[in-house]
Amino acid sequence: MAIITLTTDFGIADEYVGVMKGVILGIHPEAAIVDITHHILPQDLYHAAYTIKSSYAYFPTGTVHIIVVDPGVGSPRSIIGLEKQGHFFLAPDNGVLSLLYDDVDTSSFVQVNNSRYFLKSVSRTFHGRDIFAPVGAHLSLGARLADVGDAIERSQLVYLDMVEPVRSGNEITGHIISIDRFGNLISNIGEQLFADSCRENNYQGIEIRLGKIKIRGLSQSYASRSGGKPLAIIGSRGTIEIAVNKGSAQKTIKAEKGNRITVKICN
Amino acid sequence: MAIITLTTDFGIADEYVGVMKGVILGIHPEAAIVDITHHILPQDLYHAAYTIKSSYAYFPTGTVHIIVVDPGVGSPRSIIGLEKQGHFFLAPDNGVLSLLYDDVDTSSFVQVNNSRYFLKSVSRTFHGRDIFAPVGAHLSLGARLADVGDAIERSQLVYLDMVEPVRSGNEITGHIISIDRFGNLISNIGEQLFADSCRENNYQGIEIRLGKIKIRGLSQSYASRSGGKPLAIIGSRGTIEIAVNKGSAQKTIKAEKGNRITVKICN
Amino acid sequence: MAIITLTTDFGIADEYVGVMKGVILGIHPEAAIVDITHHILPQDLYHAAYTIKSSYAYFPTGTVHIIVVDPGVGSPRSIIGLEKQGHFFLAPDNGVLSLLYDDVDTSSFVQVNNSRYFLKSVSRTFHGRDIFAPVGAHLSLGARLADVGDAIERSQLVYLDMVEPVRSGNEITGHIISIDRFGNLISNIGEQLFADSCRENNYQGIEIRLGKIKIRGLSQSYASRSGGKPLAIIGSRGTIEIAVNKGSAQKTIKAEKGNRITVKICN
Repeated sequence: MAIITLTTDFGIADEYVGVMKGVILGIHPEAAIVDITHHILPQDLYHAAYTIKSSYAYFPTGTVHIIVVDPGVGSPRSIIGLEKQGHFFLAPDNGVLSLLYDDVDTSSFVQVNNSRYFLKSVSRTFHGRDIFAPVGAHLSLGARLADVGDAIERSQLVYLDMVEPVRSGNEITGHIISIDRFGNLISNIGEQLFADSCRENNYQGIEIRLGKIKIRGLSQSYASRSGGKPLAIIGSRGTIEIAVNKGSAQKTIKAEKGNRITVKICN
Repeated sequence: MAIITLTTDFGIADEYVGVMKGVILGIHPEAAIVDITHHILPQDLYHAAYTIKSSYAYFPTGTVHIIVVDPGVGSPRSIIGLEKQGHFFLAPDNGVLSLLYDDVDTSSFVQVNNSRYFLKSVSRTFHGRDIFAPVGAHLSLGARLADVGDAIERSQLVYLDMVEPVRSGNEITGHIISIDRFGNLISNIGEQLFADSCRENNYQGIEIRLGKIKIRGLSQSYASRSGGKPLAIIGSRGTIEIAVNKGSAQKTIKAEKGNRITVKICN
Repeated sequence: MAIITLTTDFGIADEYVGVMKGVILGIHPEAAIVDITHHILPQDLYHAAYTIKSSYAYFPTGTVHIIVVDPGVGSPRSIIGLEKQGHFFLAPDNGVLSLLYDDVDTSSFVQVNNSRYFLKSVSRTFHGRDIFAPVGAHLSLGARLADVGDAIERSQLVYLDMVEPVRSGNEITGHIISIDRFGNLISNIGEQLFADSCRENNYQGIEIRLGKIKIRGLSQSYASRSGGKPLAIIGSRGTIEIAVNKGSAQKTIKAEKGNRITVKICN
């Protein structure tokens, strides 16, 4: 059992993803390769960072996660290898992994630079094929991070400039960070930020504001509110999500990624 | 050998499908997971019902088919487990499986409710990850339907309100039920409905009407009619399909799903 | 280890690809199936021909490559089996494989016609399912090309009418043959066409023209030119590619497939 996941902004119309899989299987024929998504918005590091953060823990330990959202390909940017909770990650050092850096041992970071694990010829534009795929395949075969690169200090790494949700008094302010195929608006406000306050009444006392929309209480299912009215619910990432049953909250509310959302908690 | 197929309306831009695969492989590392499609139109139960009906029999027996088109997720709707012809199916009880209910033993239905087979924490919005994936993985490992749920009566199940094709005299009336990437218009009028009548002349005597279009006879291949003229052919589902060689019947005829199609058979 | 790749124009919204995989796994349960792409533009033989040419060599030898871009399905067009450099290819005889015909032994071509390897019932519209999938699965299990068809002369095959790049004096004229998800404009002008001339100065002396755009020198990475200015680089296929760092050359230049590109080499 060896699983390799792929998260890229390559789309699936071009041959890029298939070619990466060919390289992986040439090195490790028994690897199970899972696409997390190839539809990261081109070069959208935030989108990729939230996607891998929301996904990796559902795979078994030992999985190798390859993230290639890499506008700096071919420039002197580094490639990072990271071990966290038994999972392995490979990504450009552009911040795309930085949401995972909490609670990680300093010794768990390497700069991938051992060209013995690369394809013989490395192009200027496609390190997914020439570096990430072969290094990931070797990690899934048992190579250690220390084999594929040298230790690097955490302080040398690039971090994304994140705006984390803020709680001030009885109000939490966050943002819409993702909109899914159903038009569900996914915020970065996790249940743990307000669980101390409202759990006794099953969150019926909280009040959510998004633009001109005000929603009272959290719903127990999408189907529990009808008539095209927006509802708030704790979504699959464990954060507050705004949805419209059998409709699209994105269209109904005309919301966008980055919009501010506030939660007034029980006091 | 254990195959699990996935049919959902999740799309592939979000992480949802990848996460389901992570859960499955965590339980059954050797499973081969096949995407039938994740592009069911959001919450379109008919689309999903025809897709799984047209697909499952091409997989080997023992395959577990997971269908998650589930607008009622989190509400008290049931999840159904079904065995038919050696295939296993898991889907919400919203009718999406109901095209398969003919010729099925009453004992073949269960209501999936044994939470021992679920993820420990079940969200309100993503039973694909929390229930369908782990239950499907366990079925593919050899769990029996009776292990994952209690028997349920067929009469308690939800059925889609289908309009089946009708033969009246020498005329059959059906509908366009699907339009594929090529713009082929796929009807629900199967060959068996008119095979008694026209086979001797290879169906050259039948006449098909769709909107203002009239087509005489069935073609033997897409390429057998040129010049952008619509043709009728027995398509890959065994039903009458309207196509335009090297073009799109959808665009040429401006047809839509649900349009009525009639076949005047040889008499 | 047995890998089967799929390159089609089926898209992934319909059930067609999933059904092909079901047929393959029914015959060869251990096969690893890799999608190269299913987003070949409908019936675009050139697109498919360049895609498979750019991809196959990254897979291990022994891989079976199935290409189904097949507007002539059901007509008397042949299906070709080809062995090249230890790889196996199955495709309609419509030219889609013809970029691979150089340097191939005459004995390496067969016309696939042994219906013992087909599904029992062959439809008029979906040979991907009924012929390509089962024949490919049997090849991956060890059947030889001679088992699945009869030898065919190369001179009987259909070739695409390709316009290869031309070098005249110190100028090379080629075309944009592909545009990827990032808007990168991929030409058919390979490095080997000008490597004799400019390598000593790392290609800084060459001059590229595309429409009204003139670019001097080749960049070493996408990131090496900023401000939305088009750059030229040797891309992942080993050919000249026009790109805009963190932008889309397609949009910036308003270029299209088929546009002429010229390279003035060092003299």
